[in-house]
Amino acid sequence: MVKSQALQTNMDVDYVISYRFVKTDKAVAIAKFEQLVQALASVGLQTEVRNGGNHSILLFTKVASDEHLFGEVYRSRVRDWIHGVRAAAPPKETREALEAEPLYEAERLRIIYQLITHPVAEGGAGITPNEGEWENVESIFALHDHAYNTEWIKRWSTSYFLKTEDLDEIRNRLGEKIAFYFAFTQSYFTFLVFPAAFGLSAWFLLGHFSPIYGIVSAVWCTVFTEYWKHQEVDLGVRWGVRGVSKIEAKRKNFKHEKQITDPITGETVSIFPAVKRLQRQLWQIPFALGAATLLGALIATCFGIEVFISEVYNGPFKSVLVFLPTGIATIVMPILSGILMNFATRLTEYENYETHRAYEIALTQKVFVLNFITSYLPIFLTAFVYVPFGTLIVPHLDIFSLTVKPFADDDKQLKAPKAGFAINPDRLRKQVIYFTVTAQIVNLGMELIVPYLKRRGLLRYKKMQSDRAAKMQSNPAAKNGNPPPSPSETDSPEDAAFLERVRQEAELGVYDVTSDLREMVLQFGYLSLFSVVWPLTAVSFIINDWIELRADAVKICVEMQRPIPWRADTIGPWLDSLSFLTWLGSLTTSALVYMFSNDGLGPGGHPSSIRGWALLLTVLFAEHAFFVLRWGVRVAISKLDSPGLQKERRERFLVRKRYFEENLSQLDQIPKMAEAGEDITRKTLEEDARRSSLKASTVEDRFWGRQKGWRETVAIGKSLIEKANIETSPERKKDL
Amino acid sequence: MVKSQALQTNMDVDYVISYRFVKTDKAVAIAKFEQLVQALASVGLQTEVRNGGNHSILLFTKVASDEHLFGEVYRSRVRDWIHGVRAAAPPKETREALEAEPLYEAERLRIIYQLITHPVAEGGAGITPNEGEWENVESIFALHDHAYNTEWIKRWSTSYFLKTEDLDEIRNRLGEKIAFYFAFTQSYFTFLVFPAAFGLSAWFLLGHFSPIYGIVSAVWCTVFTEYWKHQEVDLGVRWGVRGVSKIEAKRKNFKHEKQITDPITGETVSIFPAVKRLQRQLWQIPFALGAATLLGALIATCFGIEVFISEVYNGPFKSVLVFLPTGIATIVMPILSGILMNFATRLTEYENYETHRAYEIALTQKVFVLNFITSYLPIFLTAFVYVPFGTLIVPHLDIFSLTVKPFADDDKQLKAPKAGFAINPDRLRKQVIYFTVTAQIVNLGMELIVPYLKRRGLLRYKKMQSDRAAKMQSNPAAKNGNPPPSPSETDSPEDAAFLERVRQEAELGVYDVTSDLREMVLQFGYLSLFSVVWPLTAVSFIINDWIELRADAVKICVEMQRPIPWRADTIGPWLDSLSFLTWLGSLTTSALVYMFSNDGLGPGGHPSSIRGWALLLTVLFAEHAFFVLRWGVRVAISKLDSPGLQKERRERFLVRKRYFEENLSQLDQIPKMAEAGEDITRKTLEEDARRSSLKASTVEDRFWGRQKGWRETVAIGKSLIEKANIETSPERKKDL
Repeated sequence: MVKSQALQTNMDVDYVISYRFVKTDKAVAIAKFEQLVQALASVGLQTEVRNGGNHSILLFTKVASDEHLFGEVYRSRVRDWIHGVRAAAPPKETREALEAEPLYEAERLRIIYQLITHPVAEGGAGITPNEGEWENVESIFALHDHAYNTEWIKRWSTSYFLKTEDLDEIRNRLGEKIAFYFAFTQSYFTFLVFPAAFGLSAWFLLGHFSPIYGIVSAVWCTVFTEYWKHQEVDLGVRWGVRGVSKIEAKRKNFKHEKQITDPITGETVSIFPAVKRLQRQLWQIPFALGAATLLGALIATCFGIEVFISEVYNGPFKSVLVFLPTGIATIVMPILSGILMNFATRLTEYENYETHRAYEIALTQKVFVLNFITSYLPIFLTAFVYVPFGTLIVPHLDIFSLTVKPFADDDKQLKAPKAGFAINPDRLRKQVIYFTVTAQIVNLGMELIVPYLKRRGLLRYKKMQSDRAAKMQSNPAAKNGNPPPSPSETDSPEDAAFLERVRQEAELGVYDVTSDLREMVLQFGYLSLFSVVWPLTAVSFIINDWIELRADAVKICVEMQRPIPWRADTIGPWLDSLSFLTWLGSLTTSALVYMFSNDGLGPGGHPSSIRGWALLLTVLFAEHAFFVLRWGVRVAISKLDSPGLQKERRERFLVRKRYFEENLSQLDQIPKMAEAGEDITRKTLEEDARRSSLKASTVEDRFWGRQKGWRETVAIGKSLIEKANIETSPERKKDL
Repeated sequence: MVKSQALQTNMDVDYVISYRFVKTDKAVAIAKFEQLVQALASVGLQTEVRNGGNHSILLFTKVASDEHLFGEVYRSRVRDWIHGVRAAAPPKETREALEAEPLYEAERLRIIYQLITHPVAEGGAGITPNEGEWENVESIFALHDHAYNTEWIKRWSTSYFLKTEDLDEIRNRLGEKIAFYFAFTQSYFTFLVFPAAFGLSAWFLLGHFSPIYGIVSAVWCTVFTEYWKHQEVDLGVRWGVRGVSKIEAKRKNFKHEKQITDPITGETVSIFPAVKRLQRQLWQIPFALGAATLLGALIATCFGIEVFISEVYNGPFKSVLVFLPTGIATIVMPILSGILMNFATRLTEYENYETHRAYEIALTQKVFVLNFITSYLPIFLTAFVYVPFGTLIVPHLDIFSLTVKPFADDDKQLKAPKAGFAINPDRLRKQVIYFTVTAQIVNLGMELIVPYLKRRGLLRYKKMQSDRAAKMQSNPAAKNGNPPPSPSETDSPEDAAFLERVRQEAELGVYDVTSDLREMVLQFGYLSLFSVVWPLTAVSFIINDWIELRADAVKICVEMQRPIPWRADTIGPWLDSLSFLTWLGSLTTSALVYMFSNDGLGPGGHPSSIRGWALLLTVLFAEHAFFVLRWGVRVAISKLDSPGLQKERRERFLVRKRYFEENLSQLDQIPKMAEAGEDITRKTLEEDARRSSLKASTVEDRFWGRQKGWRETVAIGKSLIEKANIETSPERKKDL
């Protein structure tokens, strides 16, 4: 009962700040803490402090009064309007503005978070967790809304499809960035229904490497990618965030080379020369090559060993030894990836981007390259190296005999048969099935288990660290000191359950939406690049993704701290990866269809009969067909209307109307042209005549003085028209 | 002297309307004329009428008073602002607005033209020349500024390069649309300096079909295309027209299928279903195929005859007969092109576009397809059909023997040698030289002479028509009637010279800037597609274009009526053609370099040794290298700053600053957060305590009630930090 009560209320807390001082000198820790509380108070946040356990304290904050919050909200909305995110300026009376457009939870939390973290110069408290002055601030997090979370997971786990309203709710609670991830995955899931159904029938009816399946799959990938772009715009408008990615947030770690005074704005601007950045960016080329070489070598080695053992070696323990390369890959790959990832981050840091967005794009590109190699290279090797060149390569795999030498009875077992070696056409399919089924399931499991294990480990480590600190401080020699009493002993009974819960949430990990997005994009890659090998790919994915969507919801609710509700109007640089994979899919699919026609044995019944020019012509044709198709799909989709676009048009129309009314009403004092025309003809006639006789008239005045008013023009014109026929008549009459 | 005076003044005339009534009943003509003058007067235009000769009258108009013009200008500027063309709303006082930003001539003329031609509902007079009710209105044109024209041509013909100021002047006089043409041609001309110089040295040092020249040329084309896109933006900002292409002007000829009430704006909207338009657009495919077949057949036939005569036939008159196909092409091609062009226009009309822009894009695409075939197909045939398959095809050219049979002495002269036929490697180069030198010169000449001849012909026709009308009316039987007296006899001596000049200008043609643009884009195509055949191409073009730029200026000044100064912010759909040609160039150049390596004789010394896979691999590689290059160039160019972009930033900054000041000053009444934080800590302490004792306090109230103000939070925090180390100490001390 106590626990459920603790879950029911968040005590009006907006953010909890976890402050750890295990490594800091006591006096410094106290001074820093005072500074922290003072900074928070200075931006109008009320504070409460409680014991956090393991040398940490929990600082609870909430906004002191609604009036102040409204001021911040209004400022934020005006900024949005000026950046073009909102069509109209917010109404000037603050309370009125908020009544017309009430604050949603994510907006409130975002604004308060920005109030805490924005630099002092921009009106924030300037608190940056784990950095510089604030390195004791371990984390800033909002509390989960457990009642909502329970209901959320319950609802989702009992429905097949998510509705837009479900996404709206995520947006209201967790912000647009996370909502965009769920919207993307949901869109993708819905779209998967078609290739899953078609793939199933293709599997029954068309067999593997069917050109029909290849074409349908390529069309589907293109339609999905282009439709998602359209959908993004629509959702952006629906959630009122279209254009937020253009609001550039400066990176704190940006190091300027020089400061100049902007000739335009008169402000001091920090500059880092673009040429110098380009020089640094050029390191990306050796990095990519190095990463490709290292990862490629590892993958190729494992691949070679596997081929050797399964197809050359025929000594004892073959069935066990065949898992040796998988073992090597499983152990070495994460380590190597980790090192390269670390390197990529440091390189991106070194490239010294000015804005968060540029940094994120640059990092995502590198991450994509790394993931591309680890995810797809094994299949590429099988399809485009092993199959066409297998007969040439396999006899040279003797070099891997070392790995199994200890197990072999004699050298014969390590020698490839001199002749008659045939490639194993099933290998490719097995590999695709491994990556699209087994690896996906493993991945899903890991995603739920790893954070749990990590959290347990971290908690234990923190406790150890804290214990050691306590021992060292009191008596470095003490060996059998009792553990410190748990912080809950100091809690007041009324708060105890609540505080216990907050302590737990403080220990949770931080949710990273981009890693989930990456997973989806890489999954899409298998579909676009290789699904022609095994048409059931989409069936596996649709099952996986139904669970994935729910598992991610559970992960956010249970395994992670409540995420900071950032805004976004796109899935960002991953969109480019999606387009890239779709394009590459047109190449691989056509190449695979050609190479493995005749049921996986190459066009002439044997891989050696693959013709270079035919392969190239197929690929070239497929690629250009893809370009034309993409163009067509883009044009067709751009014609689609959508609720979001309608809303945008309505807003723009209303703004336009108001402006027109405001501005053009001023023009009423000027006589309208229509009336003026008449005026001139009547009144100014004599006036003009008098004036022209008074002053020395110019040629122009005399030219325009012939006909006064339009009636005279008409009269003269009439006579001219009549004369045109009469002119000749009198003379002619004379002649006759 | 009289003549020079006539050229000196335009009599303050804004527009001249030429009204012809040769085919109209006299009474109707008079009624219509009255209607016309009344319509003009109703929008505040002053009118004067004079005799025009050949059954026409000239109606001179000028704006009645500055005040009215200012009103129109202000309305136009407000509309621009609302469409996002101007960053800031124009100042509200009209005169003030005009003093801050004076009206330039083209703007004045455009606004008056719109006043005359816009529909009555939109505040114009609704006069549409040659259409419906206004079919007697032959043309509406402004008068040339001869003093400026003379100076313009003089200045241009004595300078090598045009400066941005020269383009500014064109923009001020003739409007942005024409200025964009000149800016494009000038940019192109400047860029040509490099390939001309490089081509010259390549011609000396590298020979034909040099891969180095091919790469340099492809890079240059890409840089130019991308740079022009950047330049367009810059000029658009400089001339304050960025975004005008988004202001959609409705087409008068648009026929709606149904009218619905827009759910958003409540206005009645005319709708033509997109699906139906798509169905109509599908006719483009048979049209393109048909045009390609017809033109292709003509070109292929001429080509075949030419090859036959020059390489198979060896009878008499060979040197004369070889020009036979050129003769056929010269006569039949313009007729066929004209028919197809007519068809294209009608098809575009049938597609029933809603806006001028959509119509223009659709028409330009068709025009481009037609021109692409007529301009480049002959060279494509030589390079990709004649050379690789020549030995196969030439023996079958006997079918063309019919054309020269009458001249042949015996059948032997018409038979191809059975063996030993070798293709003529020089043919391709000769053809490229023909298209890039001879055809360009001919074209330039035609451009200046044809309008003159056309005008002469038209004048004679009108006179004939007018004479006949006069004769018919007075006495149909009369055969030897004197010609009617020239209209100048009715002129007052003072105006006579001026009116004579206006009559001449009324007979001039209407300048069409898109045909000049098309010419430039097609010229660029030769450079990007085939210049690797003959590296001197750019040298020829640079000479041609220097003259072209001046010739166009002369054409506008002398041969054409003063053009209506339309606005534009781009060269429009031709930009896509440019990108397309650049891309296609990467394919053709690489293919040509491979096929004609070894000095025009194919890779192995003979065309038959061309390998399909090698050719395809070359093309595939070149195309993807081009994609990467284009991406790189785009990124690099997007980093460039320019005066235009700076201006735009400055304007946006100023607007933003003003808005911020206007809106946020309102927020001052709300206490800033920083102060509020302090307030709470001091004053509300007792108040809160009393309140919490009065009412039944909630869990939340009690939670937040523990620490009043940030100082207390600091104090409690301090004690917690200190306790964290002390807690364990007493117990441990006991243990020791």
